[in-house]
Amino acid sequence: MSETTSTQIHLASRPTGWPTDENFSVEHVELPELADGEVRVRNEFISVDPYMRGRMNDTRSYVKPFQIGEQISGGAVGRVIASRDSSLPEGTLVLHQLGWSDLAQGPAANFKQIPDLPGVPSSLRLHILGMTGLTAYVGLKAIAGLVEGETVFISGAAGAVGTAAGQIAKLMGAKRVIGSAGSAEKVELLTSKYGYDAAFNYKDGDVRGQLAAAAPEGIDVFFDNVGGDHLEAALAAFNDGGRAALCGAIASYNTTEPTPGPQNMANLITRGLKLQGFTLSSYLNYGEEFSQLMGQWFAEGKIAYDETIVDGVDNTVQAFLDMMGGANTGKMLVRI
Amino acid sequence: MSETTSTQIHLASRPTGWPTDENFSVEHVELPELADGEVRVRNEFISVDPYMRGRMNDTRSYVKPFQIGEQISGGAVGRVIASRDSSLPEGTLVLHQLGWSDLAQGPAANFKQIPDLPGVPSSLRLHILGMTGLTAYVGLKAIAGLVEGETVFISGAAGAVGTAAGQIAKLMGAKRVIGSAGSAEKVELLTSKYGYDAAFNYKDGDVRGQLAAAAPEGIDVFFDNVGGDHLEAALAAFNDGGRAALCGAIASYNTTEPTPGPQNMANLITRGLKLQGFTLSSYLNYGEEFSQLMGQWFAEGKIAYDETIVDGVDNTVQAFLDMMGGANTGKMLVRI
Repeated sequence: MSETTSTQIHLASRPTGWPTDENFSVEHVELPELADGEVRVRNEFISVDPYMRGRMNDTRSYVKPFQIGEQISGGAVGRVIASRDSSLPEGTLVLHQLGWSDLAQGPAANFKQIPDLPGVPSSLRLHILGMTGLTAYVGLKAIAGLVEGETVFISGAAGAVGTAAGQIAKLMGAKRVIGSAGSAEKVELLTSKYGYDAAFNYKDGDVRGQLAAAAPEGIDVFFDNVGGDHLEAALAAFNDGGRAALCGAIASYNTTEPTPGPQNMANLITRGLKLQGFTLSSYLNYGEEFSQLMGQWFAEGKIAYDETIVDGVDNTVQAFLDMMGGANTGKMLVRI
Repeated sequence: MSETTSTQIHLASRPTGWPTDENFSVEHVELPELADGEVRVRNEFISVDPYMRGRMNDTRSYVKPFQIGEQISGGAVGRVIASRDSSLPEGTLVLHQLGWSDLAQGPAANFKQIPDLPGVPSSLRLHILGMTGLTAYVGLKAIAGLVEGETVFISGAAGAVGTAAGQIAKLMGAKRVIGSAGSAEKVELLTSKYGYDAAFNYKDGDVRGQLAAAAPEGIDVFFDNVGGDHLEAALAAFNDGGRAALCGAIASYNTTEPTPGPQNMANLITRGLKLQGFTLSSYLNYGEEFSQLMGQWFAEGKIAYDETIVDGVDNTVQAFLDMMGGANTGKMLVRI
């Protein structure tokens, strides 16, 4: 592995529907000498996330689109291998948003030092102890306003955000947590490992009927990672005053036709429901509170997690596509 | 007019689609002697409102359905003509929820004394100074959280709630208020009388395009009385952080097929939007604040209104159907 040549994944063209290899290019970029105040980092893990698909489109959003010909940015964790900034000496473990590459370089301010704890893999900073866990927490706490004793439904529950959200909901005092996932194995794991009270396979169809059976007393909170028929099912199952935190809509990220909306939107009025979408960037102020809570839960052994790991920066695109297709349980990561 | 025989409109059967005369019956009911603590009221005006259509169905809602064979309940204003309760002597002006009849009778607690102000028609207690005005205020203030300088879109803007909401939005400091209505005459009235900055006729089609043209800088708040394509248009026009108060969905109240949902629900996530439905019953605590504000605005001559009046309790069903069809400008009322 070179110390000066960065292997990077760039966006070559905007995908229509499912991305293909042609939409990306692998670039070998010779890094310039470090300037004063800069550091060079060798990544240990890089993150592939569903929201990245949205940034590949040139559409208006909170988060601006990836630019063609530029590196795909996103979460990564690594170690400083060269430094011209005294605050981040060689060997420091850091988190950053520079994304899909083996080496990252730039001003020290772009890198955040993280605690290098024995027995805590650095990869966890990219999911349960990082943005993924914070996303789950913000959705339940700030957006849906979950309170003790409520029933929660989480779609796409075996993914990185879903496995975190189910456990956090229970730890926040939810009475009953129900999850949907895309295979029998994942469904089994939700109840055996992640504390879900009930789970079902949405690929068996009739999401509305399966949810109604799993939630005979209705649901109060919905954490949505999927969209489409999951949202319609939740609207049918909501108790009065129900709240949905809309985090993702993976069902429609790779479709080229418009996704039909729920046919039961009128329930919003008759039951006094709230649907609220969010992207984490507006709620980073919850980071401190989350880190304290999750740090304690994790130290007490209350948090389970799974990682699906692919090796080598060259395989990042494949890891991303596999994740979009549901090949992962828990967090999909690329190990450098 | 008898002092002891009440002419009442009862629900005879549940409508499918548009209600017809057969769904109602006119009953002449001999009232019993007044018991201690009871009063008898001759109504001056009774209210017909869109939400009543929902209560004619046997579906789960915050507000329970009307029962077959029972009188249609709802807002009415009248004067006490016989009293066995010292708190409400003969001649007192009262507001109540007993609904579609010429005479109303019951415990004094079911009737609320209202100020009998010179120059203020009692009918206004059923709209701009009453529940209708409060509905508009709650939607803008408590649900959508309108703040100064924002752009507001109100659908069904020439109706009772819409004419109130447009004026209240302006008085709350909205920068620009846009309305939709169902005829050229109504559209003209919105800008000439009700202070709307722009308005369009939704029967001309392309609601999305007409809204985009009227709101070149997007909208921040949507107050929905219509649903359907209006909601889809608002989702397309929303700025980041936009909020919708969903008050009514008159477009779908009389349809027998499910209403297609908006195809652009994903905007909720990418733009951080909130959609919240409400029924007034949960927000009556805003009544005091509203009465003070509206009382002052009204006294200062800042509030315009229209009434479409039908005479005679026998014509209540026709008034209700005409209102559902959009025959009214401002508030539709039956004068007894």
